[in-house]
Amino acid sequence: MESNMHLRPHFKTHQSVEVGNWMKEEGIDRCTVSSVSMAKYFVQGGWKDITIAFPVNPREWSTIEELAKQAIVNITVTSPHVVPFLLEHPPAAPMGVYIKIDVGTQRTGFRSTEEAQIEHVLESLKNHAQYTFRGFLCHAGHSYACRSIPEVQEIHEQTVALLVSLRHRFAQYAPFDLSIGDTPTASVATGWEEIDELRAGNFVFYDVMQWQIGAAALEDIAVCLACPVVAKHPDRKTIILYGGGVHLAKDRLIWNDKTIYGFPVMIDEKSLIWSLPDAESYVKGISQEHGVVQASAELFDQIAVGDLLGVLPVHSCMTADLMKGYLTTNSQELNMMQIPQ
Amino acid sequence: MESNMHLRPHFKTHQSVEVGNWMKEEGIDRCTVSSVSMAKYFVQGGWKDITIAFPVNPREWSTIEELAKQAIVNITVTSPHVVPFLLEHPPAAPMGVYIKIDVGTQRTGFRSTEEAQIEHVLESLKNHAQYTFRGFLCHAGHSYACRSIPEVQEIHEQTVALLVSLRHRFAQYAPFDLSIGDTPTASVATGWEEIDELRAGNFVFYDVMQWQIGAAALEDIAVCLACPVVAKHPDRKTIILYGGGVHLAKDRLIWNDKTIYGFPVMIDEKSLIWSLPDAESYVKGISQEHGVVQASAELFDQIAVGDLLGVLPVHSCMTADLMKGYLTTNSQELNMMQIPQ
Repeated sequence: MESNMHLRPHFKTHQSVEVGNWMKEEGIDRCTVSSVSMAKYFVQGGWKDITIAFPVNPREWSTIEELAKQAIVNITVTSPHVVPFLLEHPPAAPMGVYIKIDVGTQRTGFRSTEEAQIEHVLESLKNHAQYTFRGFLCHAGHSYACRSIPEVQEIHEQTVALLVSLRHRFAQYAPFDLSIGDTPTASVATGWEEIDELRAGNFVFYDVMQWQIGAAALEDIAVCLACPVVAKHPDRKTIILYGGGVHLAKDRLIWNDKTIYGFPVMIDEKSLIWSLPDAESYVKGISQEHGVVQASAELFDQIAVGDLLGVLPVHSCMTADLMKGYLTTNSQELNMMQIPQ
Repeated sequence: MESNMHLRPHFKTHQSVEVGNWMKEEGIDRCTVSSVSMAKYFVQGGWKDITIAFPVNPREWSTIEELAKQAIVNITVTSPHVVPFLLEHPPAAPMGVYIKIDVGTQRTGFRSTEEAQIEHVLESLKNHAQYTFRGFLCHAGHSYACRSIPEVQEIHEQTVALLVSLRHRFAQYAPFDLSIGDTPTASVATGWEEIDELRAGNFVFYDVMQWQIGAAALEDIAVCLACPVVAKHPDRKTIILYGGGVHLAKDRLIWNDKTIYGFPVMIDEKSLIWSLPDAESYVKGISQEHGVVQASAELFDQIAVGDLLGVLPVHSCMTADLMKGYLTTNSQELNMMQIPQ
């Protein structure tokens, strides 16, 4: 790191207290989550400083209040429409408030040019002792469309410029943080001197999408779905896996003009260590329970019905969310958050 | 129905013993599933005649054997490579065997022209008392690419012709059934006289995909994801939902040249009854927890942060699988199969 920025990793990727504890051992003491259920799970797991980087959901307000009694909880305001609710429902415990800036993703958040609306939020909350403005938060999700490091760098520089302009414009509300969240810029961009907080999460596992963006090498991908091989079709060199959309999710990308849902890799069943993908094989189709691998001649011949074949996922967060648990290469079972109630 | 065909509905759509029981009350006494876990769940739920319409997974053989002691269990052979395993592992209880025919989907199964390979399977198993050939099974998954009833009808006629040719070619193995599985042909095709069994499943709920194919009306869609509204962006008429890929799944389709992930509908919170979608609004984007609705002016004005907005899913099976439960319009909670162990 080139700055004094602190790391508040996003735990939506792994959703596991045990993986969180590995980070705690490295000195991380705060985290980001994307749902109230996840905040509850990690507060129960001992986390004391959590940002819910998702628009405030009024329907979960009582749970958020409850969590704020047990830990530092930061909420996220992404549009003016929730402000009346916040004013009418002062929380039972103090909360931090981040304002989300839409730096180009066009999902949610204020544009940096919406100065009047931003000021309205700041003015509305500033006299309420239970709400403390913590800063401007963004997620440059449009960096996921990049396919090279210079493209990622360009988005990062635009993002930093927008956030810094807000720091100057709203200086009277200082001190506050500037917080950036996406894994591509976190992985490969330079120029972090002005930024206070990094909330990236996907870097814990990476995936084929991050590899395609240029944010990770295939060797960096740290999660793999082990799929039983259930059929083979020699005429078209396809291998059928018990591994479908309900396991892998249906995230996909275009690679060499083909739609792919992951890369197949050989797994050593004893060590659980997988090899790198060959340059030819890919998961070409996914239905509810089936995965269809278009295999190189070598992969096709090496694999038999009854074997396990690994799949490096296109989007590790979604695959992890579906599988609800991990087995490490040390044969340790790791728990995850289960279905929220 | 125009024939004496029996219905063996696919339960992968609802994955609920309670919904299964509704069908049982209508006289259904057999079902189809797409995994061994699902077979176990429904055998535990009292089902006595189950087809696992998924390639035999040797790694789950002991569970399949166990289930075959408790119920009529039919397994599915989709490629010759599993036959040696079946011969080397004669089951502890009798099983039915279906041979899957690839009628054009190109996922798994034998082509109808692969007569030697089909005969090899039949000959290999015929002297094993524990295996009884039950018939040829297919899933015309390519009917999902149709966008009109005549297209669906054409696929149905091709499918029936292929199956009937197999009935004649392999007459010496009679009696056996011809079994068809897809919802589009089940919903709108005519000409079932030669077919013995229908295994469709999606018809229990239907979804936007079936509507686009022409297999269902929007009024027929019987499942809806209720999503809290968490933000609004008036400049671009978008509504942000707590309802993302981990709830709805990421199935999508092209509608009026736009990629859509579902249709938003108004919900009456008391009755839980939803209205029909307007002709303009759609779910335009999905990330892990967020859904982004492109709203008509009317919908945008009607909906406030804190309200619930319904989403009719593109693919109801995947949404149900993620949500792991239902609330009926009679406020009854219905259970589903949970994460398989």
